[in-house]
Amino acid sequence: MPAAGQYSGETDMNDFIIKGDIIYSESLTELKLCPDSYLVCTDGICRGVFERIPEEYAGLETVDDSGSLVVPGLSDLHLHAPQYSFRGMGMDLELLDWLNTYAFPEESSFKDREYAGKAYSIFAGDLEKSPTTRACIFATIHPEATMMLMEMLEKTGLRGFVGKVNMDRNSPDYYVEKSAEDSLSATVRWLRDSREQFRNFQPVITPRFTISCSDDLMNMLGLAAREFNVRVQSHLSENRSETALVKELCPWAGHYIDTYKRPGLIGGSMPSVMAHCVYSDEYELQVMRDNGVFLAHCPQCNMNLASGLAPVRRWLDMGLNVGLGTDVAGGATLSIFRTMMEAMQTSRMVWRYIDSSLKPLTMEEVFFLGTKGGGAFFGKTGSFESGYSADLLVLDESGMRHPQPLSLRQRLERFISLSSSTDIKHKYVQGRQLF
Amino acid sequence: MPAAGQYSGETDMNDFIIKGDIIYSESLTELKLCPDSYLVCTDGICRGVFERIPEEYAGLETVDDSGSLVVPGLSDLHLHAPQYSFRGMGMDLELLDWLNTYAFPEESSFKDREYAGKAYSIFAGDLEKSPTTRACIFATIHPEATMMLMEMLEKTGLRGFVGKVNMDRNSPDYYVEKSAEDSLSATVRWLRDSREQFRNFQPVITPRFTISCSDDLMNMLGLAAREFNVRVQSHLSENRSETALVKELCPWAGHYIDTYKRPGLIGGSMPSVMAHCVYSDEYELQVMRDNGVFLAHCPQCNMNLASGLAPVRRWLDMGLNVGLGTDVAGGATLSIFRTMMEAMQTSRMVWRYIDSSLKPLTMEEVFFLGTKGGGAFFGKTGSFESGYSADLLVLDESGMRHPQPLSLRQRLERFISLSSSTDIKHKYVQGRQLF
Repeated sequence: MPAAGQYSGETDMNDFIIKGDIIYSESLTELKLCPDSYLVCTDGICRGVFERIPEEYAGLETVDDSGSLVVPGLSDLHLHAPQYSFRGMGMDLELLDWLNTYAFPEESSFKDREYAGKAYSIFAGDLEKSPTTRACIFATIHPEATMMLMEMLEKTGLRGFVGKVNMDRNSPDYYVEKSAEDSLSATVRWLRDSREQFRNFQPVITPRFTISCSDDLMNMLGLAAREFNVRVQSHLSENRSETALVKELCPWAGHYIDTYKRPGLIGGSMPSVMAHCVYSDEYELQVMRDNGVFLAHCPQCNMNLASGLAPVRRWLDMGLNVGLGTDVAGGATLSIFRTMMEAMQTSRMVWRYIDSSLKPLTMEEVFFLGTKGGGAFFGKTGSFESGYSADLLVLDESGMRHPQPLSLRQRLERFISLSSSTDIKHKYVQGRQLF
Repeated sequence: MPAAGQYSGETDMNDFIIKGDIIYSESLTELKLCPDSYLVCTDGICRGVFERIPEEYAGLETVDDSGSLVVPGLSDLHLHAPQYSFRGMGMDLELLDWLNTYAFPEESSFKDREYAGKAYSIFAGDLEKSPTTRACIFATIHPEATMMLMEMLEKTGLRGFVGKVNMDRNSPDYYVEKSAEDSLSATVRWLRDSREQFRNFQPVITPRFTISCSDDLMNMLGLAAREFNVRVQSHLSENRSETALVKELCPWAGHYIDTYKRPGLIGGSMPSVMAHCVYSDEYELQVMRDNGVFLAHCPQCNMNLASGLAPVRRWLDMGLNVGLGTDVAGGATLSIFRTMMEAMQTSRMVWRYIDSSLKPLTMEEVFFLGTKGGGAFFGKTGSFESGYSADLLVLDESGMRHPQPLSLRQRLERFISLSSSTDIKHKYVQGRQLF
């Protein structure tokens, strides 16, 4: 592969120029607005955005999306594929009761190959059409169904991570792994098989959360994460009853985060991602900062399950890695654009009711979180700066008529608030066009 | 018109039977679920929902919507038609700054006939396609543009109220009426003209809010409301800075509500509707209950503009009249289904952060608020009980695939969470099919 700026002159399916109204984040507060500009992609990598096509790229095919907004693909740092089937239902309970009443019974049905196939094909099809290009996904405890999900996702051309879930305690009889050893050995087999079989989607070690995993299992998973050099995803400090139960279960842990830290589930050579962190205190946030953990902010789920309002401004002020998650099906929709809007709303309620020193998030900031912020978990993704993966969306604004002229910034702002998860005209991942 | 139960036997465009999966509210907590049933409508009025077609209606045409959900049309108790053009934008300010920065400049441009025509035709077209059948709408201070809006809405077949806005103080030079007298005389002319000209949409007296209206103007509008026997709509206790400014402007008023009560803008023979009421205290709520005021709960706007979380459970416990409002463009979308979801979310945050004795709202309750609760402002609308107006929606669930069987209740629940404002297959208002 030629290095950036040394384009070889040959074109293939990953080499092209997109012309359109291009927007991307350079930093948390800096939005680049490039009307009627050219985004050059070669070998699946962005080479920059230009007002005119640079001479060295003059031979490339230009795809004309003039008049359309072109933005980086969005990253969803936290969602549960098997829960997609009951999205938008069962919002009348708090987390622990919700898991027992809705999530566990539904997830247990994925031991049935046929049902899993039917449900996951709907999920994979809808995720393909959504604004998400990179995702970090929970499956169930079933290795077979998890492989099936990975196979379906692999074919979409999207990229990301999928985790077979680990659960060996405090789980219903019909949905639990027999022992820590059983859980580990199933996980190791699945890790090996899936690493070999898939390229776009890679395995991520996925202890459901501390409540569902014995100390023994956590220790084994920490060793596996190091041995296989894979990432880890889990839940942290989402809900008051959850944090109280963790205290009971792990009296040795000063803080919830210690139950991941001690077994080495954070702080390895690969980044970990923790969802929610609504109730993470200063210590927990510092530990996450020092260990390069990504925080997946899931504002809709936190409202739906009455968990609370996460103080994202504080995380940003501390310099933490932050991205967004739809958290399907604690959240109902697959659109990270909608999550951006909900992140703004949540930050306003944090400012109003929790701490008025925590300034509400701006549109620029939530757009950064949904693109470059969360995208960093997957490598150089979520921006159009030179060297970033050519993950991009051409947006469909046709359903959002307006009588007045709008700036590029205004068009992006209203797209965040008004779009549904199917308002995407074209989608490319690492230079490959999905549709 | 024959009385209920005494159907004459003749059929016309308003006489038909719809077959489908029918759902409606009988009360705040009772949802009627009628799979594969028949809703009989004659003379634009519902005659009941039946498992089999009653003999007396055997001659009526049956429209077969088997397999589709059929629900009452939704009522939007509060929205601003001229703000629709900037929906989803400018969410970075609190109410008073937001008005001066975004709302007033945009509204002022409706003095231009051509611009108003262009903008209102987009609004009326989108409202027609939305789940709303009845609406209570703010226009601008311009009588001519307001008449134009009413004419466009009249043609859609929707029903409701439109208000020419009154503003004679604390408003920018470019968007204010010259004096209380000028404001009144323009309003009276518009009241006469519009009452004569339109049938589906009727005028409603619309002092913007106390900050924008002098005591003199409020007194005159109170007299006009009585003389013309029309309804009143306004804003109340939405935002902390707003309530503080009202205290300054009206030192004579013990409570914000008194600035509407003393001039007779609530408590007349027609009900008034007050939007927001986030900060209404016990006294204010009691005054509204004693005067039959409707409270328009606008949860999305209250989050977008950082106003706060309205304690709707308290209102319901006190027996107040409550409905929902999208509050476009403090709110971004026209869908009261989405407002239902946001009302649930807001109630969870109220329970979590403000008062844990205020139980979160259920799906049944928010569905009631968006149908029969708010619908009562418009007469007997928002239910399928015998005698109610035949306002109904046939829902389009095709974009919400699922692998498992779902109950009617679950299908309604997910439609509330997942639908966009265009997922409506057919819509009828007072028995007339709009599409």
